[in-house]
Amino acid sequence: MPILVMKFGGTSVADLTRIRAAAAKVRAEVARGHDVIVIVSAMAGRTNELVGWVNETSPMYDAREYDAVVSSGENVTAGLMALTLQEMDVPARSWQGWQVPIRTTSAHGAARIEGIDRAAIDAKFTEGFRVAVIAGFQGLSPEGRITTLGRGGSDTTAVAFAAAFEAIRCDIYTDVDGIYTTDPRISARARKLERISFEEMLELASLGAKVLQTRSVELAMRYKVRLRVLSSFEDTDETSGTLVCDEDEIMESKVVSGVAHSRDEAKLTLVTVEDRPGIAAAIFGPLAEAGVNVDMIVQNISEEAQGQDPREVTDMTFSCPTDQVARAQKALEAARDRGEIKYDKLEVDTEVSKVSVVGIGMRSHAGVAARMFAALAADGVNIKVIATSEIKISVLIDRKYMELAVQALHDAFDLDKAG
Amino acid sequence: MPILVMKFGGTSVADLTRIRAAAAKVRAEVARGHDVIVIVSAMAGRTNELVGWVNETSPMYDAREYDAVVSSGENVTAGLMALTLQEMDVPARSWQGWQVPIRTTSAHGAARIEGIDRAAIDAKFTEGFRVAVIAGFQGLSPEGRITTLGRGGSDTTAVAFAAAFEAIRCDIYTDVDGIYTTDPRISARARKLERISFEEMLELASLGAKVLQTRSVELAMRYKVRLRVLSSFEDTDETSGTLVCDEDEIMESKVVSGVAHSRDEAKLTLVTVEDRPGIAAAIFGPLAEAGVNVDMIVQNISEEAQGQDPREVTDMTFSCPTDQVARAQKALEAARDRGEIKYDKLEVDTEVSKVSVVGIGMRSHAGVAARMFAALAADGVNIKVIATSEIKISVLIDRKYMELAVQALHDAFDLDKAG
Repeated sequence: MPILVMKFGGTSVADLTRIRAAAAKVRAEVARGHDVIVIVSAMAGRTNELVGWVNETSPMYDAREYDAVVSSGENVTAGLMALTLQEMDVPARSWQGWQVPIRTTSAHGAARIEGIDRAAIDAKFTEGFRVAVIAGFQGLSPEGRITTLGRGGSDTTAVAFAAAFEAIRCDIYTDVDGIYTTDPRISARARKLERISFEEMLELASLGAKVLQTRSVELAMRYKVRLRVLSSFEDTDETSGTLVCDEDEIMESKVVSGVAHSRDEAKLTLVTVEDRPGIAAAIFGPLAEAGVNVDMIVQNISEEAQGQDPREVTDMTFSCPTDQVARAQKALEAARDRGEIKYDKLEVDTEVSKVSVVGIGMRSHAGVAARMFAALAADGVNIKVIATSEIKISVLIDRKYMELAVQALHDAFDLDKAG
Repeated sequence: MPILVMKFGGTSVADLTRIRAAAAKVRAEVARGHDVIVIVSAMAGRTNELVGWVNETSPMYDAREYDAVVSSGENVTAGLMALTLQEMDVPARSWQGWQVPIRTTSAHGAARIEGIDRAAIDAKFTEGFRVAVIAGFQGLSPEGRITTLGRGGSDTTAVAFAAAFEAIRCDIYTDVDGIYTTDPRISARARKLERISFEEMLELASLGAKVLQTRSVELAMRYKVRLRVLSSFEDTDETSGTLVCDEDEIMESKVVSGVAHSRDEAKLTLVTVEDRPGIAAAIFGPLAEAGVNVDMIVQNISEEAQGQDPREVTDMTFSCPTDQVARAQKALEAARDRGEIKYDKLEVDTEVSKVSVVGIGMRSHAGVAARMFAALAADGVNIKVIATSEIKISVLIDRKYMELAVQALHDAFDLDKAG
């Protein structure tokens, strides 16, 4: 029988009533003739409670023990989901990560899935079981310890199972009913997309649209797993939600598919940096080691190179999340103290946001940047930094203009209209 | 290094503060030169919450899934205990039942331990780890599923580890500070015992002294594991609590060691039962199948055999817990309806309690029964049923006399005085 993977996040299994509602969706797919692999998260709030206990016990915790503790929430949901399905006369069995096993690296707290053994689950399907319920977010290290995949890891579990079992689709049930052209809380004209390509979803995920974990989309793209994002809290059918798929499957011809934003960004500028080969490595090496997620990088001729040869000095600007600014400052000052880099001063602006337009159509259409900048200029929004990729243009702007910019761009690219 | 097993029950690890207090006791034993195996229960209330969810989800639950859900509480405590010890600079590692593995039968919900693999834990002790923390109450079936050992199963886990690792002792930390000559809530003159034999402890455990699970005492007796019962909530040292040990180690020469009671008993009498070979099996077979725990059994010549040959009819009296009376009545009536047994009526008295005196000294001392009956008679307590074993005499009496009888027997055998 064709295998379907269905994943339910924490809010979708927050209590026994919601677990029953989720199980009813599974039963409906079984009735449609699928064998189903269900991936469950911990009941909402449970993992936070466990993480809180670990942090209170041991602020510099041993990640092996952290994983042993925090993985228990998913195990509870998996058993309860199997029992709920059995109660609905659907033959179901639960598996914890070590039972399958889901083999991972030893990187506790952020392990990567290396393989999934199909044998035990295939055998149960052959026996007549119709549903395999899998505890998400966890696996087994080569040393036989429980690992976890990092926050949101259940999405990755779901995609990995869909790939291993050659599932017809991987349905991600969550608290929103699909992927939107932009955040509906910012623009009332946001429109739900029927389909979106893996590449666009990846840009949107990494740009702050928090529906899907970036790694799960990467994995889906690599193994061509069709992902569907849909609501746990509404009646759904085969046409519900948004399908994330290969671009070959996309009929819509929009140049731009969506407008993303990331509110809490900071802009840091090293003024009059000594310019020499290797200077970028000398700056960004220490930042990476300090765990700073540098996003946009721009190098300018220094405006303040008074009396100095402008060929010998430069300004280096980069952005990172605001909560990493202190770490970044410390790392840069340490590098200066060690004599690895020289600069006159470090300017920090923590009042900026990032707004991006994303679309695979950009590859073949010119003029997207010009249209974007014109729309922002028409509303008086000053652009501080620009960065582009093949299917994305991002700008850093003053935070107070963020909502305005998102709305202006959504209108400029006619995203409220389908097709 | 000599290995010590320490077991902490649910109230002893109810929150992070109590886990720290328990860990401090473990650290003290490490400082005394022991390698320690710590067995932990779930934080108090957790298992009840999980059991509640399972029952609400599926009243006739699949025991495999029940075990997968309810075993998670111990896993959380095991990880937190290891982290707490690490935070105290004690090298510790946690194991879940399947990781050791603790091999059990497949009897989900009431599995028996069949073996414990020492290799992984021995290797860690050799590496320099000083404490192995084990999630109690659970194991792994031959089919690779999680099993649980039944309520109170963590005591059994502790004794099984003590046997497998030839531990010098198995310390059971709980919310009382030892085993008493009788329930201190009933007699203010109850005295804590320094030592008690396995046999006596077994009789006391099965008679309603709820400190230790009966199975754990049986296992300790079979493998000669010295058990110590002591308080989690007090400062303790090598002399604290009560040692449960082989009678060879007992110096005290009391004939009677303790007075036990069981409040909620019922007495059932089948009046004028047809007496023939096999009648006892015909009565007690159906009761066993119905899950009735029959305790005392007495067969009398029927007082009501008016006009009938007393050799052909008899009265059969037995006792069971009051909450099993309805089940017992149903089973007996069904057996009569099937024509397997004949009786005139079934008399039920749900207002009785059992009081027992226990002591290995009875084996070599006559007159214990006479002294017991005299003490009860002196206080006007009527005896309804008597049952004896080699080291125990139990009587069924009206419930309203229970406290009085316990106090009278405690005095009659001078249990308030040591030695």
